[in-house]
Amino acid sequence: MSAYAARAGLRAVVLVAADTPSGKLLQMCAAGARVVRVTGSVSNSMEMAKAATKAFGWYNVTTTFENPYSVEGDKTVAYEMAAELGWRAPAWIVVPTGSGPLPAGIWKGFGEMRQFGLVAGLPRIVVAQAAGCAPIAEAFRRGAEIVRPWPSPQTVASGIKDPLVGYSEDGTYTLTIVRASGGVAVAVPDEEILCVTRLMVETEGLYAEPTAGTATACAADLRRRGTIGPEDAVVVVSTGHGLKQSFVRAETLDALPEIAPSLPALAALGLED
Amino acid sequence: MSAYAARAGLRAVVLVAADTPSGKLLQMCAAGARVVRVTGSVSNSMEMAKAATKAFGWYNVTTTFENPYSVEGDKTVAYEMAAELGWRAPAWIVVPTGSGPLPAGIWKGFGEMRQFGLVAGLPRIVVAQAAGCAPIAEAFRRGAEIVRPWPSPQTVASGIKDPLVGYSEDGTYTLTIVRASGGVAVAVPDEEILCVTRLMVETEGLYAEPTAGTATACAADLRRRGTIGPEDAVVVVSTGHGLKQSFVRAETLDALPEIAPSLPALAALGLED
Repeated sequence: MSAYAARAGLRAVVLVAADTPSGKLLQMCAAGARVVRVTGSVSNSMEMAKAATKAFGWYNVTTTFENPYSVEGDKTVAYEMAAELGWRAPAWIVVPTGSGPLPAGIWKGFGEMRQFGLVAGLPRIVVAQAAGCAPIAEAFRRGAEIVRPWPSPQTVASGIKDPLVGYSEDGTYTLTIVRASGGVAVAVPDEEILCVTRLMVETEGLYAEPTAGTATACAADLRRRGTIGPEDAVVVVSTGHGLKQSFVRAETLDALPEIAPSLPALAALGLED
Repeated sequence: MSAYAARAGLRAVVLVAADTPSGKLLQMCAAGARVVRVTGSVSNSMEMAKAATKAFGWYNVTTTFENPYSVEGDKTVAYEMAAELGWRAPAWIVVPTGSGPLPAGIWKGFGEMRQFGLVAGLPRIVVAQAAGCAPIAEAFRRGAEIVRPWPSPQTVASGIKDPLVGYSEDGTYTLTIVRASGGVAVAVPDEEILCVTRLMVETEGLYAEPTAGTATACAADLRRRGTIGPEDAVVVVSTGHGLKQSFVRAETLDALPEIAPSLPALAALGLED
Protein backbone atom coordinates (compact mmCIF):
# COMPACT_ATOMS: atom_id res chain seq x y z
CA MET A 1 0.00 0.00 0.00
CA SER A 2 2.84 2.38 0.91
CA ALA A 3 4.48 1.61 -2.46
CA TYR A 4 1.28 2.20 -4.42
CA ALA A 5 0.73 5.49 -2.60
CA ALA A 6 4.29 6.53 -3.40
CA ARG A 7 3.78 5.66 -7.07
CA ALA A 8 0.56 7.67 -7.19
CA GLY A 9 2.05 10.64 -5.37
CA LEU A 10 -0.32 10.23 -2.44
CA ARG A 11 0.46 10.61 1.23
CA ALA A 12 0.13 7.41 3.29
CA VAL A 13 -0.37 6.99 7.02
CA VAL A 14 -0.01 3.39 8.18
CA LEU A 15 -1.38 2.31 11.55
CA VAL A 16 0.25 -0.95 12.62
CA ALA A 17 0.04 -3.29 15.59
CA ALA A 18 2.90 -2.51 17.96
CA ASP A 19 4.53 -5.92 17.38
CA THR A 20 4.65 -5.76 13.57
CA PRO A 21 7.92 -7.33 12.28
CA SER A 22 10.66 -4.86 11.37
CA GLY A 23 11.04 -6.01 7.74
CA LYS A 24 7.50 -4.86 7.01
CA LEU A 25 8.02 -1.55 8.80
CA LEU A 26 11.28 -0.79 6.95
CA GLN A 27 9.49 -1.24 3.64
CA MET A 28 6.74 1.21 4.61
CA CYS A 29 9.24 3.76 5.91
CA ALA A 30 11.32 3.43 2.74
CA ALA A 31 8.31 4.34 0.63
CA GLY A 32 7.84 7.49 2.66
CA ALA A 33 4.76 6.40 4.60
CA ARG A 34 4.13 7.83 8.08
CA VAL A 35 4.09 4.73 10.25
CA VAL A 36 2.37 4.81 13.64
CA ARG A 37 2.42 1.89 16.08
CA VAL A 38 -0.86 1.46 17.91
CA THR A 39 -0.74 -0.32 21.25
CA GLY A 40 -2.47 -3.70 21.33
CA SER A 41 -3.68 -6.02 18.60
CA VAL A 42 -4.32 -5.16 14.97
CA SER A 43 -8.01 -4.71 15.81
CA ASN A 44 -7.08 -1.48 17.56
CA SER A 45 -5.36 -0.26 14.39
CA MET A 46 -8.39 -1.20 12.32
CA GLU A 47 -10.69 0.68 14.66
CA MET A 48 -8.38 3.71 14.59
CA ALA A 49 -8.17 3.66 10.80
CA LYS A 50 -11.95 3.67 10.62
CA ALA A 51 -12.23 6.57 13.08
CA ALA A 52 -9.42 8.57 11.46
CA THR A 53 -10.95 8.12 8.03
CA LYS A 54 -14.15 9.66 9.31
CA ALA A 55 -12.50 12.42 11.32
CA PHE A 56 -9.80 13.51 8.87
CA GLY A 57 -11.36 12.74 5.50
CA TRP A 58 -8.76 10.04 4.70
CA TYR A 59 -9.48 7.00 2.54
CA ASN A 60 -9.37 3.68 4.37
CA VAL A 61 -7.39 1.01 2.50
CA THR A 62 -6.98 -1.55 5.29
CA THR A 63 -7.23 -5.11 4.02
CA THR A 64 -10.62 -5.59 5.61
CA PHE A 65 -14.10 -5.58 4.15
CA GLU A 66 -14.13 -1.87 5.03
CA ASN A 67 -12.40 -1.17 1.70
CA PRO A 68 -14.26 -2.74 -1.26
CA TYR A 69 -11.18 -2.59 -3.49
CA SER A 70 -9.52 -5.25 -1.30
CA VAL A 71 -11.99 -7.92 -2.32
CA GLU A 72 -12.19 -6.72 -5.93
CA GLY A 73 -8.39 -6.58 -6.21
CA ASP A 74 -7.95 -10.01 -4.64
CA LYS A 75 -10.03 -11.46 -7.49
CA THR A 76 -6.86 -11.28 -9.61
CA VAL A 77 -5.46 -14.10 -7.46
CA ALA A 78 -8.27 -16.28 -8.82
CA TYR A 79 -7.63 -15.13 -12.41
CA GLU A 80 -3.94 -16.02 -12.16
CA MET A 81 -4.68 -19.47 -10.76
CA ALA A 82 -7.26 -20.26 -13.41
CA ALA A 83 -4.98 -19.07 -16.22
CA GLU A 84 -2.00 -21.07 -14.92
CA LEU A 85 -4.13 -24.20 -14.52
CA GLY A 86 -5.46 -24.03 -18.09
CA TRP A 87 -8.75 -22.36 -17.11
CA ARG A 88 -9.99 -24.69 -14.46
CA ALA A 89 -10.36 -24.42 -10.71
CA PRO A 90 -8.22 -26.52 -8.39
CA ALA A 91 -10.08 -28.80 -6.00
CA TRP A 92 -8.84 -26.82 -2.98
CA ILE A 93 -7.44 -23.35 -2.38
CA VAL A 94 -5.81 -22.83 0.98
CA VAL A 95 -5.64 -19.20 2.13
CA PRO A 96 -3.96 -17.68 5.20
CA THR A 97 -6.83 -15.71 6.72
CA GLY A 98 -7.32 -12.91 9.23
CA SER A 99 -10.75 -11.40 8.65
CA GLY A 100 -11.13 -12.76 5.14
CA PRO A 101 -11.12 -10.38 2.13
CA LEU A 102 -8.55 -12.62 0.37
CA PRO A 103 -10.60 -15.85 0.45
CA ALA A 104 -13.69 -13.72 -0.32
CA GLY A 105 -11.97 -12.19 -3.36
CA ILE A 106 -10.74 -15.56 -4.63
CA TRP A 107 -14.23 -17.06 -4.21
CA LYS A 108 -15.84 -14.08 -5.96
CA GLY A 109 -13.29 -14.29 -8.78
CA PHE A 110 -14.02 -17.95 -9.46
CA GLY A 111 -17.77 -17.36 -9.15
CA GLU A 112 -17.66 -14.65 -11.79
CA MET A 113 -15.37 -16.67 -14.05
CA ARG A 114 -17.85 -19.53 -13.90
CA GLN A 115 -20.71 -17.16 -14.63
CA PHE A 116 -18.86 -15.93 -17.73
CA GLY A 117 -18.06 -19.48 -18.85
CA LEU A 118 -14.32 -19.18 -18.25
CA VAL A 119 -14.12 -22.07 -15.78
CA ALA A 120 -16.51 -24.98 -15.26
CA GLY A 121 -16.13 -25.84 -11.58
CA LEU A 122 -15.52 -24.00 -8.34
CA PRO A 123 -12.81 -24.61 -5.74
CA ARG A 124 -13.32 -25.47 -2.09
CA ILE A 125 -11.96 -22.66 0.05
CA VAL A 126 -9.82 -23.51 3.07
CA VAL A 127 -9.42 -20.74 5.63
CA ALA A 128 -6.04 -21.34 7.30
CA GLN A 129 -5.47 -19.85 10.75
CA ALA A 130 -3.01 -20.15 13.60
CA ALA A 131 -4.21 -22.02 16.70
CA GLY A 132 -3.29 -18.98 18.79
CA CYS A 133 -5.69 -16.76 16.83
CA ALA A 134 -8.38 -18.85 15.18
CA PRO A 135 -11.80 -17.19 15.50
CA ILE A 136 -13.12 -18.52 12.18
CA ALA A 137 -11.64 -22.02 12.51
CA GLU A 138 -13.04 -22.27 16.04
CA ALA A 139 -16.56 -21.34 14.90
CA PHE A 140 -16.30 -23.87 12.08
CA ARG A 141 -15.18 -26.56 14.54
CA ARG A 142 -18.13 -25.82 16.81
CA GLY A 143 -20.54 -25.86 13.88
CA ALA A 144 -21.54 -22.31 14.82
CA GLU A 145 -23.17 -19.72 12.57
CA ILE A 146 -21.55 -16.77 14.31
CA VAL A 147 -17.83 -16.04 14.65
CA ARG A 148 -16.78 -14.66 18.01
CA PRO A 149 -13.77 -12.36 18.50
CA TRP A 150 -10.51 -13.81 19.91
CA PRO A 151 -9.42 -11.28 22.53
CA SER A 152 -5.83 -12.42 23.22
CA PRO A 153 -4.18 -13.49 19.96
CA GLN A 154 -0.84 -15.28 20.32
CA THR A 155 0.92 -16.44 17.18
CA VAL A 156 4.06 -16.05 15.14
CA ALA A 157 1.91 -15.60 11.99
CA SER A 158 1.86 -11.79 12.13
CA GLY A 159 -0.11 -11.34 8.91
CA ILE A 160 -3.19 -13.14 10.27
CA LYS A 161 -2.89 -12.26 13.95
CA ASP A 162 -6.29 -10.61 13.77
CA PRO A 163 -8.65 -11.07 16.75
CA LEU A 164 -11.63 -9.50 14.91
CA VAL A 165 -12.48 -7.41 17.97
CA GLY A 166 -15.18 -4.98 16.88
CA TYR A 167 -15.81 -6.52 13.46
CA SER A 168 -16.32 -10.23 14.15
CA GLU A 169 -19.19 -10.12 11.62
CA ASP A 170 -16.44 -10.03 8.97
CA GLY A 171 -15.36 -13.46 10.20
CA THR A 172 -18.97 -14.63 10.13
CA TYR A 173 -19.22 -13.56 6.49
CA THR A 174 -15.98 -15.38 5.64
CA LEU A 175 -17.37 -18.48 7.38
CA THR A 176 -20.41 -18.43 5.08
CA ILE A 177 -18.04 -18.42 2.09
CA VAL A 178 -16.13 -21.41 3.45
CA ARG A 179 -19.40 -23.31 3.88
CA ALA A 180 -20.83 -22.23 0.51
CA SER A 181 -17.71 -23.53 -1.20
CA GLY A 182 -17.82 -26.86 0.63
CA GLY A 183 -14.51 -25.97 2.25
CA VAL A 184 -13.21 -25.97 5.80
CA ALA A 185 -11.62 -23.59 8.30
CA VAL A 186 -8.74 -25.05 10.28
CA ALA A 187 -5.93 -23.94 12.57
CA VAL A 188 -2.46 -25.29 13.35
CA PRO A 189 -0.19 -24.49 16.30
CA ASP A 190 2.85 -22.24 15.98
CA GLU A 191 5.36 -25.11 16.29
CA GLU A 192 3.80 -26.69 13.22
CA ILE A 193 3.71 -23.37 11.37
CA LEU A 194 7.42 -22.81 12.00
CA CYS A 195 8.31 -26.40 11.15
CA VAL A 196 6.48 -26.24 7.81
CA THR A 197 7.77 -22.75 6.95
CA ARG A 198 11.28 -24.09 7.48
CA LEU A 199 10.50 -27.21 5.45
CA MET A 200 9.28 -25.08 2.52
CA VAL A 201 12.63 -23.35 2.11
CA GLU A 202 14.83 -26.30 3.09
CA THR A 203 13.22 -28.70 0.63
CA GLU A 204 11.71 -26.46 -2.07
CA GLY A 205 13.74 -23.28 -1.79
CA LEU A 206 10.55 -21.28 -1.13
CA TYR A 207 11.38 -18.72 1.56
CA ALA A 208 8.03 -17.64 2.98
CA GLU A 209 7.02 -15.75 6.08
CA PRO A 210 5.26 -17.80 8.80
CA THR A 211 1.85 -16.45 7.76
CA ALA A 212 2.30 -18.13 4.39
CA GLY A 213 3.69 -21.25 6.07
CA THR A 214 0.43 -21.45 8.05
CA ALA A 215 -1.48 -22.23 4.87
CA THR A 216 0.94 -24.97 3.82
CA ALA A 217 0.78 -26.45 7.32
CA CYS A 218 -3.03 -26.48 7.19
CA ALA A 219 -2.93 -28.14 3.76
CA ALA A 220 -0.58 -30.84 5.10
CA ASP A 221 -2.87 -31.34 8.10
CA LEU A 222 -5.96 -31.76 5.90
CA ARG A 223 -4.12 -34.22 3.67
CA ARG A 224 -3.05 -36.25 6.74
CA ARG A 225 -6.62 -36.33 7.97
CA GLY A 226 -7.86 -37.43 4.56
CA THR A 227 -10.04 -34.34 3.97
CA ILE A 228 -7.83 -33.52 0.99
CA GLY A 229 -7.52 -36.61 -1.20
CA PRO A 230 -4.23 -37.94 -2.63
CA GLU A 231 -5.17 -36.92 -6.19
CA ASP A 232 -6.77 -33.55 -5.40
CA ALA A 233 -5.28 -30.44 -7.02
CA VAL A 234 -4.40 -28.05 -4.21
CA VAL A 235 -3.23 -24.45 -4.49
CA VAL A 236 -1.71 -22.87 -1.39
CA VAL A 237 -1.57 -19.08 -1.38
CA SER A 238 1.73 -17.76 -0.04
CA THR A 239 1.02 -14.22 1.03
CA GLY A 240 4.41 -13.04 2.24
CA HIS A 241 8.11 -13.46 1.51
CA GLY A 242 10.49 -14.58 4.24
CA LEU A 243 12.48 -11.37 3.88
CA LYS A 244 9.53 -9.54 5.46
CA GLN A 245 9.54 -11.74 8.54
CA SER A 246 12.14 -14.48 8.80
CA PHE A 247 11.67 -17.52 10.97
CA VAL A 248 15.44 -17.41 11.46
CA ARG A 249 16.21 -15.48 14.63
CA ALA A 250 18.56 -12.53 14.33
CA GLU A 251 20.80 -14.05 17.03
CA THR A 252 21.53 -16.90 14.63
CA LEU A 253 23.68 -14.44 12.70
CA ASP A 254 25.83 -13.70 15.74
CA ALA A 255 26.62 -17.39 15.89
CA LEU A 256 27.91 -17.57 12.31
CA PRO A 257 31.64 -18.37 12.30
CA GLU A 258 34.06 -15.70 11.08
CA ILE A 259 37.40 -16.98 9.88
CA ALA A 260 40.65 -15.64 8.49
CA PRO A 261 40.96 -16.05 4.71
CA SER A 262 42.96 -19.26 4.86
CA LEU A 263 42.10 -22.78 3.79
CA PRO A 264 43.21 -24.35 7.10
CA ALA A 265 40.79 -22.01 8.92
CA LEU A 266 37.97 -23.22 6.68
CA ALA A 267 39.02 -26.85 6.99
CA ALA A 268 38.93 -26.49 10.78
CA LEU A 269 35.15 -25.92 10.54
CA GLY A 270 34.74 -29.51 9.34
CA LEU A 271 32.46 -28.74 6.39
CA GLU A 272 34.34 -30.85 3.83
CA ASP A 273 31.57 -33.36 3.29
CA MET B 1 22.08 -20.15 -4.73
CA SER B 2 21.16 -21.44 -1.24
CA ALA B 3 17.55 -21.81 -2.37
CA TYR B 4 18.47 -23.69 -5.55
CA ALA B 5 20.73 -26.02 -3.54
CA ALA B 6 17.88 -26.64 -1.09
CA ARG B 7 15.50 -27.42 -3.94
CA ALA B 8 18.00 -29.83 -5.48
CA GLY B 9 18.77 -31.53 -2.17
CA LEU B 10 22.41 -30.41 -2.30
CA ARG B 11 24.52 -29.14 0.57
CA ALA B 12 25.62 -25.51 0.26
CA VAL B 13 28.50 -23.72 1.93
CA VAL B 14 28.45 -19.95 1.44
CA LEU B 15 31.58 -17.87 2.02
CA VAL B 16 30.62 -14.22 2.51
CA ALA B 17 32.44 -10.98 3.18
CA ALA B 18 32.28 -10.24 6.89
CA ASP B 19 30.13 -7.11 6.34
CA THR B 20 27.40 -8.76 4.26
CA PRO B 21 23.96 -7.29 5.17
CA SER B 22 21.87 -9.38 7.55
CA GLY B 23 18.85 -9.74 5.23
CA LYS B 24 20.99 -11.67 2.75
CA LEU B 25 22.47 -13.85 5.49
CA LEU B 26 19.06 -14.70 7.00
CA GLN B 27 17.88 -15.92 3.61
CA MET B 28 20.90 -18.22 3.22
CA CYS B 29 20.53 -19.56 6.76
CA ALA B 30 16.80 -20.16 6.22
CA ALA B 31 17.55 -22.35 3.22
CA GLY B 32 19.87 -24.46 5.33
CA ALA B 33 23.17 -23.25 3.89
CA ARG B 34 26.29 -23.27 6.06
CA VAL B 35 27.31 -19.62 6.08
CA VAL B 36 30.90 -18.64 6.89
CA ARG B 37 32.05 -15.03 7.21
CA VAL B 38 35.53 -14.48 5.80
CA THR B 39 37.47 -11.53 7.15
CA GLY B 40 38.13 -8.76 4.64
CA SER B 41 36.61 -7.97 1.27
CA VAL B 42 34.67 -10.30 -0.99
CA SER B 43 37.88 -11.01 -2.92
CA ASN B 44 39.04 -13.07 0.06
CA SER B 45 35.85 -15.13 -0.10
CA MET B 46 36.32 -15.64 -3.85
CA GLU B 47 39.87 -16.81 -3.34
CA MET B 48 38.79 -19.14 -0.55
CA ALA B 49 35.96 -20.58 -2.65
CA LYS B 50 38.44 -21.34 -5.41
CA ALA B 51 40.87 -23.00 -3.01
CA ALA B 52 38.16 -24.95 -1.19
CA THR B 53 36.72 -26.21 -4.47
CA LYS B 54 40.10 -27.64 -5.34
CA ALA B 55 40.86 -29.03 -1.90
CA PHE B 56 37.47 -30.50 -1.00
CA GLY B 57 36.02 -31.43 -4.40
CA TRP B 58 33.20 -28.86 -4.13
CA TYR B 59 31.62 -27.12 -7.10
CA ASN B 60 32.27 -23.38 -7.29
CA VAL B 61 29.11 -21.37 -8.05
CA THR B 62 30.33 -17.88 -7.14
CA THR B 63 28.99 -15.22 -9.46
CA THR B 64 32.34 -14.75 -11.13
CA PHE B 65 33.73 -15.94 -14.42
CA GLU B 66 35.02 -18.95 -12.44
CA ASN B 67 31.62 -20.60 -12.91
CA PRO B 68 30.55 -20.68 -16.59
CA TYR B 69 26.89 -21.18 -15.66
CA SER B 70 26.82 -17.62 -14.27
CA VAL B 71 27.32 -16.04 -17.68
CA GLU B 72 25.13 -18.59 -19.47
CA GLY B 73 22.35 -18.18 -16.90
CA ASP B 74 22.54 -14.40 -17.04
CA LYS B 75 21.69 -14.58 -20.75
CA THR B 76 18.06 -15.03 -19.70
CA VAL B 77 18.09 -11.39 -18.57
CA ALA B 78 18.70 -10.46 -22.22
CA TYR B 79 15.95 -12.81 -23.42
CA GLU B 80 13.43 -11.28 -21.03
CA MET B 81 14.31 -7.74 -22.08
CA ALA B 82 14.07 -8.54 -25.79
CA ALA B 83 10.76 -10.34 -25.37
CA GLU B 84 9.24 -7.50 -23.30
CA LEU B 85 10.44 -4.90 -25.82
CA GLY B 86 8.87 -6.72 -28.78
CA TRP B 87 12.12 -8.42 -29.86
CA ARG B 88 14.41 -5.47 -30.08
CA ALA B 89 17.37 -4.27 -28.05
CA PRO B 90 17.13 -1.08 -26.00
CA ALA B 91 19.71 1.60 -26.81
CA TRP B 92 21.31 1.25 -23.35
CA ILE B 93 21.39 -1.39 -20.66
CA VAL B 94 22.72 -0.22 -17.31
CA VAL B 95 24.06 -3.01 -15.09
CA PRO B 96 25.32 -2.87 -11.48
CA THR B 97 28.73 -4.53 -11.82
CA GLY B 98 31.32 -6.12 -9.57
CA SER B 99 33.55 -8.34 -11.72
CA GLY B 100 31.10 -8.58 -14.60
CA PRO B 101 29.40 -11.91 -15.41
CA LEU B 102 26.01 -10.16 -15.53
CA PRO B 103 26.89 -7.57 -18.22
CA ALA B 104 28.85 -10.33 -20.01
CA GLY B 105 25.82 -12.62 -19.98
CA ILE B 106 23.47 -9.89 -21.20
CA TRP B 107 25.90 -8.98 -24.00
CA LYS B 108 26.30 -12.63 -24.98
CA GLY B 109 22.55 -13.13 -24.93
CA PHE B 110 21.92 -10.23 -27.30
CA GLY B 111 24.82 -11.29 -29.52
CA GLU B 112 23.37 -14.78 -29.91
CA MET B 113 19.86 -13.46 -30.44
CA ARG B 114 21.15 -11.26 -33.24
CA GLN B 115 23.03 -14.19 -34.73
CA PHE B 116 19.80 -16.20 -34.75
CA GLY B 117 17.85 -13.33 -36.27
CA LEU B 118 15.72 -12.70 -33.17
CA VAL B 119 16.81 -9.07 -32.74
CA ALA B 120 18.28 -6.66 -35.29
CA GLY B 121 20.46 -4.36 -33.19
CA LEU B 122 22.65 -4.58 -30.12
CA PRO B 123 22.51 -2.54 -26.91
CA ARG B 124 25.26 -0.39 -25.45
CA ILE B 125 26.33 -1.85 -22.12
CA VAL B 126 26.83 0.51 -19.18
CA VAL B 127 28.85 -0.89 -16.29
CA ALA B 128 27.58 0.89 -13.16
CA GLN B 129 29.89 1.04 -10.15
CA ALA B 130 30.15 2.87 -6.85
CA ALA B 131 32.82 5.56 -6.61
CA GLY B 132 34.19 3.82 -3.52
CA CYS B 133 34.87 0.63 -5.48
CA ALA B 134 35.19 1.40 -9.17
CA PRO B 135 38.05 -0.58 -10.73
CA ILE B 136 36.40 -0.94 -14.14
CA ALA B 137 34.99 2.61 -14.31
CA GLU B 138 38.39 3.98 -13.31
CA ALA B 139 40.18 2.07 -16.08
CA PHE B 140 37.57 3.29 -18.57
CA ARG B 141 38.04 6.89 -17.41
CA ARG B 142 41.81 6.61 -17.85
CA GLY B 143 41.37 5.05 -21.28
CA ALA B 144 43.38 2.07 -20.02
CA GLU B 145 43.37 -1.44 -21.45
CA ILE B 146 44.01 -3.13 -18.14
CA VAL B 147 41.81 -3.01 -15.02
CA ARG B 148 43.69 -2.72 -11.75
CA PRO B 149 42.37 -4.07 -8.43
CA TRP B 150 40.87 -1.65 -5.89
CA PRO B 151 42.42 -2.67 -2.58
CA SER B 152 40.23 -0.74 -0.09
CA PRO B 153 36.61 -0.78 -1.26
CA GLN B 154 34.24 1.55 0.59
CA THR B 155 30.62 1.65 -0.49
CA VAL B 156 27.07 1.03 0.67
CA ALA B 157 26.44 -0.99 -2.51
CA SER B 158 27.23 -4.37 -0.97
CA GLY B 159 26.41 -6.42 -4.06
CA ILE B 160 29.16 -4.80 -6.13
CA LYS B 161 31.70 -4.08 -3.40
CA ASP B 162 34.22 -6.23 -5.24
CA PRO B 163 37.86 -5.03 -5.35
CA LEU B 164 38.89 -7.70 -7.90
CA VAL B 165 41.99 -8.52 -5.86
CA GLY B 166 43.53 -11.60 -7.43
CA TYR B 167 41.28 -11.69 -10.51
CA SER B 168 41.45 -8.17 -11.94
CA GLU B 169 41.67 -9.78 -15.41
CA ASP B 170 37.92 -10.44 -14.99
CA GLY B 171 37.45 -6.67 -14.88
CA THR B 172 39.67 -6.26 -17.93
CA TYR B 173 37.49 -8.74 -19.81
CA THR B 174 34.34 -6.86 -18.75
CA LEU B 175 35.95 -3.62 -19.94
CA THR B 176 36.43 -5.12 -23.42
CA ILE B 177 32.71 -5.90 -23.51
CA VAL B 178 31.83 -2.34 -22.55
CA ARG B 179 34.04 -1.02 -25.36
CA ALA B 180 32.85 -3.61 -27.91
CA SER B 181 29.26 -2.55 -27.25
CA GLY B 182 30.03 1.15 -27.58
CA GLY B 183 29.06 1.56 -23.94
CA VAL B 184 30.65 3.22 -20.93
CA ALA B 185 31.73 2.35 -17.40
CA VAL B 186 30.88 4.96 -14.77
CA ALA B 187 30.75 5.37 -11.03
CA VAL B 188 28.67 7.49 -8.66
CA PRO B 189 29.33 8.35 -5.01
CA ASP B 190 27.41 6.72 -2.15
CA GLU B 191 25.41 9.87 -1.36
CA GLU B 192 24.03 9.81 -4.87
CA ILE B 193 23.38 6.06 -4.71
CA LEU B 194 21.38 6.46 -1.51
CA CYS B 195 19.53 9.49 -2.81
CA VAL B 196 18.46 7.71 -6.01
CA THR B 197 17.60 4.46 -4.20
CA ARG B 198 15.32 6.49 -1.96
CA LEU B 199 13.87 8.34 -4.95
CA MET B 200 13.03 5.05 -6.70
CA VAL B 201 10.74 3.92 -3.90
CA GLU B 202 9.39 7.34 -2.94
CA THR B 203 8.35 8.24 -6.47
CA GLU B 204 7.89 4.90 -8.24
CA GLY B 205 7.25 2.50 -5.37
CA LEU B 206 10.26 0.40 -6.43
CA TYR B 207 12.03 -0.67 -3.25
CA ALA B 208 15.53 -1.68 -4.35
CA GLU B 209 18.75 -2.31 -2.47
CA PRO B 210 21.50 0.30 -2.93
CA THR B 211 23.36 -1.93 -5.39
CA ALA B 212 20.39 -1.67 -7.73
CA GLY B 213 20.05 2.04 -7.01
CA THR B 214 23.64 2.43 -8.21
CA ALA B 215 22.59 1.55 -11.74
CA THR B 216 19.70 4.01 -11.75
CA ALA B 217 22.01 6.72 -10.38
CA CYS B 218 24.52 6.02 -13.16
CA ALA B 219 21.76 6.17 -15.77
CA ALA B 220 20.61 9.53 -14.41
CA ASP B 221 24.18 10.78 -14.45
CA LEU B 222 24.69 9.75 -18.09
CA ARG B 223 21.42 11.38 -19.08
CA ARG B 224 22.47 14.63 -17.33
CA ARG B 225 25.80 14.57 -19.13
CA GLY B 226 24.07 13.97 -22.47
CA THR B 227 25.69 10.58 -23.11
CA ILE B 228 22.23 9.06 -22.99
CA GLY B 229 19.92 10.99 -25.29
CA PRO B 230 16.42 12.20 -24.35
CA GLU B 231 14.73 9.70 -26.70
CA ASP B 232 16.99 6.70 -26.01
CA ALA B 233 15.37 3.54 -24.69
CA VAL B 234 17.16 2.65 -21.45
CA VAL B 235 16.82 -0.50 -19.37
CA VAL B 236 18.23 -0.42 -15.85
CA VAL B 237 18.81 -3.80 -14.24
CA SER B 238 17.73 -3.88 -10.59
CA THR B 239 19.60 -6.77 -9.06
CA GLY B 240 18.32 -6.77 -5.50
CA HIS B 241 15.18 -6.01 -3.47
CA GLY B 242 15.26 -3.50 -0.65
CA LEU B 243 14.20 -6.17 1.81
CA LYS B 244 17.67 -7.71 1.40
CA GLN B 245 19.44 -4.50 2.33
CA SER B 246 17.34 -1.47 3.24
CA PHE B 247 18.66 2.05 2.98
CA VAL B 248 16.43 2.80 5.96
CA ARG B 249 18.46 2.45 9.14
CA ALA B 250 17.14 0.07 11.79
CA GLU B 251 17.26 2.92 14.33
CA THR B 252 14.55 4.66 12.31
CA LEU B 253 12.14 2.07 13.65
CA ASP B 254 12.94 2.98 17.25
CA ALA B 255 11.85 6.51 16.42
CA LEU B 256 8.40 5.48 15.16
CA PRO B 257 5.70 6.85 17.45
CA GLU B 258 3.66 4.40 19.50
CA ILE B 259 0.28 5.66 20.63
CA ALA B 260 -2.68 4.47 22.64
CA PRO B 261 -5.63 3.40 20.46
CA SER B 262 -7.48 6.70 20.69
CA LEU B 263 -8.28 9.28 18.06
CA PRO B 264 -6.98 12.21 20.15
CA ALA B 265 -3.62 10.41 20.45
CA LEU B 266 -3.46 10.10 16.67
CA ALA B 267 -4.61 13.68 16.15
CA ALA B 268 -1.81 14.84 18.45
CA LEU B 269 0.72 13.58 15.89
CA GLY B 270 -0.48 16.25 13.46
CA LEU B 271 -0.84 13.98 10.43
CA GLU B 272 -4.30 15.18 9.42
CA ASP B 273 -3.25 16.73 6.15
